[in-house]
Amino acid sequence: MSIKIGLFGYGNIAKAAESGILQNSDMELVAVFTRRNPSDVKTVSGVPVHKKQDVLSFTDKIDVMLMCGGSATDLPKESPDMAKYFNIVDSFDTHTKVLEHFNNVDKSAKEGKKVSIISAGWDPGVFSLNRLFSEAFLPNGKGYTFWGKGVSQGHSDAVRRIDGVKQAVQYTNPSKDALKEVREGILPVFSPCEMHTRECFVVLKDGANKGLVESAIKNMPNYFKDYNTTVHFITDEEFNKNHTAMPHGGTVIRSGFTGIDNENKQIIEYSIKLNSNPEFTANILLCYARAAYRLYNAGDSGCKTVFDIAPYLLFSGTKKDIMERLI
Amino acid sequence: MSIKIGLFGYGNIAKAAESGILQNSDMELVAVFTRRNPSDVKTVSGVPVHKKQDVLSFTDKIDVMLMCGGSATDLPKESPDMAKYFNIVDSFDTHTKVLEHFNNVDKSAKEGKKVSIISAGWDPGVFSLNRLFSEAFLPNGKGYTFWGKGVSQGHSDAVRRIDGVKQAVQYTNPSKDALKEVREGILPVFSPCEMHTRECFVVLKDGANKGLVESAIKNMPNYFKDYNTTVHFITDEEFNKNHTAMPHGGTVIRSGFTGIDNENKQIIEYSIKLNSNPEFTANILLCYARAAYRLYNAGDSGCKTVFDIAPYLLFSGTKKDIMERLI
Repeated sequence: MSIKIGLFGYGNIAKAAESGILQNSDMELVAVFTRRNPSDVKTVSGVPVHKKQDVLSFTDKIDVMLMCGGSATDLPKESPDMAKYFNIVDSFDTHTKVLEHFNNVDKSAKEGKKVSIISAGWDPGVFSLNRLFSEAFLPNGKGYTFWGKGVSQGHSDAVRRIDGVKQAVQYTNPSKDALKEVREGILPVFSPCEMHTRECFVVLKDGANKGLVESAIKNMPNYFKDYNTTVHFITDEEFNKNHTAMPHGGTVIRSGFTGIDNENKQIIEYSIKLNSNPEFTANILLCYARAAYRLYNAGDSGCKTVFDIAPYLLFSGTKKDIMERLI
Repeated sequence: MSIKIGLFGYGNIAKAAESGILQNSDMELVAVFTRRNPSDVKTVSGVPVHKKQDVLSFTDKIDVMLMCGGSATDLPKESPDMAKYFNIVDSFDTHTKVLEHFNNVDKSAKEGKKVSIISAGWDPGVFSLNRLFSEAFLPNGKGYTFWGKGVSQGHSDAVRRIDGVKQAVQYTNPSKDALKEVREGILPVFSPCEMHTRECFVVLKDGANKGLVESAIKNMPNYFKDYNTTVHFITDEEFNKNHTAMPHGGTVIRSGFTGIDNENKQIIEYSIKLNSNPEFTANILLCYARAAYRLYNAGDSGCKTVFDIAPYLLFSGTKKDIMERLI
């Protein structure tokens, strides 16, 4: 019997989940919910599309709802709303508001006796797990998170809003020097600006002034000002050919010391290199959907994070298979 | 109230745990148990040493026993024996016998209503976790485990048994070419011999023949024959200066594809670089000891592996701290 998945929202993450479900033989996509006119939404797999406001007639048809909205305005409202009626998973990624979001979703999930798992993407999510594991294993040490090379939507949007910019993308890159120092285990102290560099690829509108645009980017407070920023001006053709994908990646490193006199250096490094950020996020969400489904069937309820989920719950194989092949 | 730890056996892992406990303020070492004459055993911290046969008078004084014997002969007997009377953790590392060991320990732990966690080192252990996570997140792909650079005790012993060898150490190294191919995401297929190279540092006895020793090493079946093996002859002084530490490391990589036509390459890599293999292993064991203690206090019992343990159980901080700082 397969796990019946619903997608609440139909943006990048939802489309990615649609293909991800095809890789998991124990799952089945049953419906997409949109705030648009359903007949205007064409799904990749042809799965039926419904209005979000009709979702409550699906409570007995969906095992787990993937909440596919954005963290800024959708998830803070939609996850608590849906958590009462469905098992849900989301990838809520505003780090500073996770605890507040947790409390809102938890209240609702407990009322409805359903299981919710929040912030189950890669950061927060899998990177959070690695920060916790590595700090537990090396309590005497220091941890670092680097992001990139990857597209930052927020920074790309900021560049696109500058006068004279036709099209733009911003990549966040880990600083090679900073990475090198961390890998040497010398426990460097950095500001965020020292850990990352920023690289913009910009298509100008006809007649726009390169110098003014470059200066507007490099001096933009918060976004670029204190960073090492490079601006490349490119053509429409080059933009469409090389800069429309959504690569991302990152590295969680902890270096620490063990031994009676802390004489032994130990380094743990976890890194990902993604050609599609949303597809990786969606695949993780699907694993946590599996866990939510299993926990719900075991009688559990309430809100969880990745820290609460025993690893075997994520995996489709039997415990025996896991013990013989993966341990 | 701190978690009272006992060490069953007093070899490399136990000594490493002794210093590891000092890094964990919620833990306290209460006793060491040895099969030697206790008065002959001098502990680093001065903790009392007792005979293994007296261990049962400590059932109310120890919260978790770290089983510090070897996987070949000690743990298969001692872990099931002790699991009935104590919460235990071990780093049993004979991959092919984990399921058998699990069943033996589980029976005993259930009889005694105690919690056991087995195979909780780095491989099996943390590497197992990474194999499971990465296969769950990227079901369409291929996983690889590389070991090294690190000392292999078994191979070092084999070299030391050769006529004319006074002292020797063998390092297992990941093959750079193999690593490169895996990181490119082309899903190469390897035999174990193609993934690793072997490097020996040998001190000869007076009058021994270099050529004969080198040939004996390189042609040793199972251990070296099909590997790319390098032999370095060095002096006593160089051996003592550079080759008495216990470094190790390794990498778990999975590369996979996502997308409706599997068009997007995704790579996950977990790697560790250890200056002290036993101290890292001991630190992991201590985290799982914390988990065993918490599960026991919550009324759980029976044998577990790393796959069964929710991540937050490993960490000494509060759930709130974890949610605010690490997620």
